[in-house]
Amino acid sequence: MAKPPVLTPQSDDFPRWYQDVIARAELADNGPVRGTMVIRPYAYAIWERMQSEVDRRIKATGAENAYFPLFIPESYLTREAEHVEGFSPELAVVTHAGGKELTEPVVVRPTSETVIGEYMAKWVQSYRDLPLLLNQWANVVRWELRPRIFLRTTEFLWQEGHCAHASREDGHDYAVRILDDVYSDFMESVLALPILRGIKPASERFAGAINTMTCEAMMGDGKALQMGTSHELGQSFARAFEIGYLDAEGNQQLCWTTSWGVSTRMMGGLIMGHGDDRGIRVPPRIASTQVVVMVVRDDDASTVASAARRIVEELTAVGVRARLDAEIQTGFGRRATDWELKGVPVRIELGPRDVEGGVATVARRDDLAKSEIALAGIAGSISSLLEDVQLALWSEALARRDARSAEVATISEAVEAAGTGFARMPWSALAGGGEAALGEHAITVRCLQRQDGSMPLDEDEPDLIAWVARSY
Amino acid sequence: MAKPPVLTPQSDDFPRWYQDVIARAELADNGPVRGTMVIRPYAYAIWERMQSEVDRRIKATGAENAYFPLFIPESYLTREAEHVEGFSPELAVVTHAGGKELTEPVVVRPTSETVIGEYMAKWVQSYRDLPLLLNQWANVVRWELRPRIFLRTTEFLWQEGHCAHASREDGHDYAVRILDDVYSDFMESVLALPILRGIKPASERFAGAINTMTCEAMMGDGKALQMGTSHELGQSFARAFEIGYLDAEGNQQLCWTTSWGVSTRMMGGLIMGHGDDRGIRVPPRIASTQVVVMVVRDDDASTVASAARRIVEELTAVGVRARLDAEIQTGFGRRATDWELKGVPVRIELGPRDVEGGVATVARRDDLAKSEIALAGIAGSISSLLEDVQLALWSEALARRDARSAEVATISEAVEAAGTGFARMPWSALAGGGEAALGEHAITVRCLQRQDGSMPLDEDEPDLIAWVARSY
Repeated sequence: MAKPPVLTPQSDDFPRWYQDVIARAELADNGPVRGTMVIRPYAYAIWERMQSEVDRRIKATGAENAYFPLFIPESYLTREAEHVEGFSPELAVVTHAGGKELTEPVVVRPTSETVIGEYMAKWVQSYRDLPLLLNQWANVVRWELRPRIFLRTTEFLWQEGHCAHASREDGHDYAVRILDDVYSDFMESVLALPILRGIKPASERFAGAINTMTCEAMMGDGKALQMGTSHELGQSFARAFEIGYLDAEGNQQLCWTTSWGVSTRMMGGLIMGHGDDRGIRVPPRIASTQVVVMVVRDDDASTVASAARRIVEELTAVGVRARLDAEIQTGFGRRATDWELKGVPVRIELGPRDVEGGVATVARRDDLAKSEIALAGIAGSISSLLEDVQLALWSEALARRDARSAEVATISEAVEAAGTGFARMPWSALAGGGEAALGEHAITVRCLQRQDGSMPLDEDEPDLIAWVARSY
Repeated sequence: MAKPPVLTPQSDDFPRWYQDVIARAELADNGPVRGTMVIRPYAYAIWERMQSEVDRRIKATGAENAYFPLFIPESYLTREAEHVEGFSPELAVVTHAGGKELTEPVVVRPTSETVIGEYMAKWVQSYRDLPLLLNQWANVVRWELRPRIFLRTTEFLWQEGHCAHASREDGHDYAVRILDDVYSDFMESVLALPILRGIKPASERFAGAINTMTCEAMMGDGKALQMGTSHELGQSFARAFEIGYLDAEGNQQLCWTTSWGVSTRMMGGLIMGHGDDRGIRVPPRIASTQVVVMVVRDDDASTVASAARRIVEELTAVGVRARLDAEIQTGFGRRATDWELKGVPVRIELGPRDVEGGVATVARRDDLAKSEIALAGIAGSISSLLEDVQLALWSEALARRDARSAEVATISEAVEAAGTGFARMPWSALAGGGEAALGEHAITVRCLQRQDGSMPLDEDEPDLIAWVARSY
């Protein structure tokens, strides 16, 4: 008799599967204050790898890390009209501190454009100080009405880049570079998720931006997830915070600012972008544990555990992130199910007869295929297998996106297509109320692209394509 | 005519020197909300190296990183009586969020024993789950009446470890291991600061602890700085949050918990522990920039800049963190002063005649000595010079601590000695009101040690030594 599945099958109830897998794979818990989350060690180790990969790419663009305060005077938020309007409903406010009521309440940062703008104004004097490229890794708070772990939480972790530029063009180029060389590159080459890059229509822009560019990925249920954004903020923050500079001719000029961020939301993208009915599937390049070496059974002399330990050492020596599972007091089936839940890309299963025969069983997490592998030269064969798994997860995600993306011409066709995936349609077909019509079906324009997939300068360019979908 | 010094001399006014150097070396700014700080890129890069060095050592002890929420229900804090009493005066409280008044106010974490205790109780079931070794890197908030950048700020960055153990002994051993193998080892071998390790007297314990162990360093003015602490929390948090386990015999038991942390306060220790009248001095092992290669002057063909770039590449290739300063439009003297302010351990100065002659001038930041060095094999000689500088800073700090530590027998002698440094005295000499008598002179017991410098189990052991000093 088949055992009941550990997780709700995705096809039965995808949101329920998501909740189940987060609990069963020990990724996160709900925090005690509504909408907050506890990130458990296994998920946090993946987040640390995300941070390190993104941070390296950010630094390669010339930006430097810094840290700005969590608490922002309420008055700062109000200096940029669209910004305060966008964030006011989500703010958490400290009114009492040190046992007293504060004379001016302070806001827990929902994002840091305002406070960083204040300091940019002090630090930028001349064109020689530009561009000023800053980034911080921090927690932010936005009070959420419908929280969902990793996707929409009251507190989340992210990086936020904030830059001041001498010209609109320089700001634009840098914001595009972040989207391409940092975000898209990381998401595609490491997370193995195909990314649509484009601009948001005006209705979906960041509060205060003149242009928002986005990375959009398709989840396992065909919905879109916004994985990261890069904003051109024009001169409104520079005006509000007086971020100016003397140009080479000695004239006072106003800066152009940009901001850009990715967050723990990417964990949600990883889970929903690759997960299956057995659990999550972690692409090898982001996996904190790439290979688990399991002792199936052992003899009294722990011969198998010793051999397994040697394999872990061999793998570690060539840079593979491997760990040992010699917990033979727990049944093998239960342990194997747990590693599947946690999505470790490759399992090596070793029993007494394997050790005698100089072989092991290798199980791939992506397609669940098992094969026999020689212990001699195992480090090399596993390294190349990990690359195969990385590629297979990418190909599968790409094939799904292609299969579930439809070319459509009308709003009603778009509504039909968005039932199962993405619709690609002429942006002009949405002129005059099209976005609102889609909105009635909880469908939004995810991004606008040129015909060739490249990034438009603005939504008024002719012949743009709109990608529309339901989304998280 | 001598130029006026950039910084207030340390001997004139040490606190003023500290403020000056933080501003002039572009380390940090005051934040807009009283007591908060902005950590600027140069200082943040050092903090990132601190994090990475400490994190590696923490993971080597078996602890795993996780993340717990910033917001803690007020009711959690009140469950452990001493804990709430200790932290109440410093709490920041969110009363409004999402546009509404909250039904239960939430506290911005001053530390996370309570919220982590709540989750430990869920995760720990059996003795097999122990020890549970967790750590998080996070920001915390404690409303400060007399804030001082890096030393005592309303918001600061830190790591906080929180562990559950099966026995008091296991908790004690682990808390000692953190103090020794993580904190002291990092502070001595990387920060080059000699550390006194010992236990705090009851009056100086963490709120809720049964034992607080500490790392104390001497600053440039002879005062002490508490650089890190490791606490045994006994069973009071375990009782308050019901952190229990079934032992191997099937009996329900209560856990023993520990917690331990170091923070951005270590930046203050670095500045005040090694700084001189020219600026900070960063030990090479913690320096984000170990070597700056300066172009003194150049010809039209940029011959010197090319040669300087090659040196940077050679240094980088052997793992030295080197950067180029080819900003010849700024005067050489001003640039050299700036690198001195920022404490870069080694400067290589290169002009046209140096390149012709195949040599460069090398300036050490520790003793300001200059010498000529051959460009051939420069990577090797600089690597070994960096080790020399590391050792020299250590030796200087150790010699100062020795010179400024006095063996005393009475309270009045201790008061005298603490005017310039540390006093080492019998703990028994402070029985019956001795701590209060010292307190009148703003002197405290920094730690208690055994005669041989080892860690006592508690303050009631016979023949203990008390280190007393003024402190930050």
